Amino acid sequence: MRIALDAMGGDFAPQVLVEGAYIAKDNLDVELVLVGDEAKIREIAGNRELPFEIIHTEEAIQMNEHPAQAVKSKKRASLVLAVEMLRDKQVDAVVSAGNTGAFVACASLILDTISGIERPSIGITIPTLNHPVFIIDTGANIDCKPVYLYQFAIMGMSYSHSILGIDNPRVGLINIGSEETKGNSLTKSTYTILKSIPNFVGNIEGNDIFENKADVVVCDGFIGNVLLKFAEGFAYTFERMIRGALADSVIPRSAKIFVDNAINNAFSIYDFSEYGGTPLLGINGVCIVAHGRSNAKAIYNSIKVAKKSVESNLLKEIEKGVASYVR
Amino acid sequence: MRIALDAMGGDFAPQVLVEGAYIAKDNLDVELVLVGDEAKIREIAGNRELPFEIIHTEEAIQMNEHPAQAVKSKKRASLVLAVEMLRDKQVDAVVSAGNTGAFVACASLILDTISGIERPSIGITIPTLNHPVFIIDTGANIDCKPVYLYQFAIMGMSYSHSILGIDNPRVGLINIGSEETKGNSLTKSTYTILKSIPNFVGNIEGNDIFENKADVVVCDGFIGNVLLKFAEGFAYTFERMIRGALADSVIPRSAKIFVDNAINNAFSIYDFSEYGGTPLLGINGVCIVAHGRSNAKAIYNSIKVAKKSVESNLLKEIEKGVASYVR
Repeated sequence: MRIALDAMGGDFAPQVLVEGAYIAKDNLDVELVLVGDEAKIREIAGNRELPFEIIHTEEAIQMNEHPAQAVKSKKRASLVLAVEMLRDKQVDAVVSAGNTGAFVACASLILDTISGIERPSIGITIPTLNHPVFIIDTGANIDCKPVYLYQFAIMGMSYSHSILGIDNPRVGLINIGSEETKGNSLTKSTYTILKSIPNFVGNIEGNDIFENKADVVVCDGFIGNVLLKFAEGFAYTFERMIRGALADSVIPRSAKIFVDNAINNAFSIYDFSEYGGTPLLGINGVCIVAHGRSNAKAIYNSIKVAKKSVESNLLKEIEKGVASYVR
Repeated sequence: MRIALDAMGGDFAPQVLVEGAYIAKDNLDVELVLVGDEAKIREIAGNRELPFEIIHTEEAIQMNEHPAQAVKSKKRASLVLAVEMLRDKQVDAVVSAGNTGAFVACASLILDTISGIERPSIGITIPTLNHPVFIIDTGANIDCKPVYLYQFAIMGMSYSHSILGIDNPRVGLINIGSEETKGNSLTKSTYTILKSIPNFVGNIEGNDIFENKADVVVCDGFIGNVLLKFAEGFAYTFERMIRGALADSVIPRSAKIFVDNAINNAFSIYDFSEYGGTPLLGINGVCIVAHGRSNAKAIYNSIKVAKKSVESNLLKEIEKGVASYVR
């Protein structure tokens, strides 16, 4: 399997991309293609052998650029070249930690969406006490129509099944009450069309996300993105509060290491670097969106997600879902 | 000061209302009026003296009733009688842990809003590492117009100043990026009008809520309500994860109590019973909305919030804010 890395995308590019590629080379059976500035990549490699194909380009899309404009004007941007390789079947998947909006725009333009899907979408897996919950959309689509949310549900079910290994995933709709009549105009209309999915369990409130009521939780990308970032900030704040409280307490020095480990374990579950990226769902090709602040481990884990998405035939799974449910 | 309690409202009414009233009687200089079923209240009091005025009624609005309909049809509901007492200046404030929608409807109908405010609003204080952040609206207003969010900002500033003691509170807008052009159609339009507030600091992402970038964070009630409940579920899950990890580790028995205390301290910060209720802002009268699952301590703390709201002249503060900022 061949996977292209956008070596110029992300807050710590190209450093973490190259280091992540080395970890992947040692641990996964994949061929990697690094798309980016060859001189910089060689500099990072240093004395090490460079067991990757390199496609050289100096052009890159920055994090703060307007997505569609950047994709159109920068024909030789590392991201654009990587996605073109996927279109031309020179690679099986693309991983980028760069500008997410640009990735969505680029993939939509060059690869198009799966038939029956109007908007590509991204989601995130939230670990709870008992099982993972997949929240979709988390930022690709801001002002949504009910039918988009319906399509997110279908794609989320496919993801939950093929990537998270959940049989017959249940779908819930993020809302402010359990009754069908609750919500804003978007969720009320969405509820009506989601009812045609046999595994639709109804509305899910913010706290229900953790209560094993649904495997896939659907929302528009505005609320999904706020929730995702809120969760990051909240986890970080909690960790600091608990560590602060512990520092003030009189626990024997010898016990502190165990307490530290326990806290590390609990919080590592919410460490995005453990999860790597998430597929851009609904696109005709495996595109893995990694976090902009990815470190090398997160890049490695994103490459793993790419490999799993290809092996588990995620695209076919989504096509199957669309065929079953989309009218 | 006289405060009326809707003794029939909330998941554990009238029990927790009566017990909360006893705690308040012992700790605060207030006169309390319990509006509810006298026989039930006397039964809970048992052998204790009953140092409260009781307004007897057997009618109550249930948690799942349609708010406006219930308020209109149940003329002698405990909530309705309590709010009428406030209108007639027989009490200085009302506390209810009952149906929030009904409380909003009832207060709007009987007391009306402050001139210049179109929609009453509720918020919540989120403690962070360094300072409290007031998020408004958290559920009173679902489909919002930009001007509502503008008015929430003004009311939030008044609350932050008079109740949380913050000078010149800074206002942020919940959004998915820091740039002015980011967001959905509601936030883009809201940004434009919020710019007229000198203390407007721009967009606040989910993680920024914890980063001391703003004192008042404005959003529509849909997202505010999802966030509020998400935070509750998240904190609970975290606590269980950490306790689980600790149970599996080999910390000496003697140290466990210190670790337990540290965790209790950290999590107590997110325990809503410590905070009590939150005022229904924008209404011509002090109405305190307590959590439906309030225990006696939460009721006591809600009575404290009522007292503080009256003493700090919260209504005048909001009127002042409206006069300064609302066109």
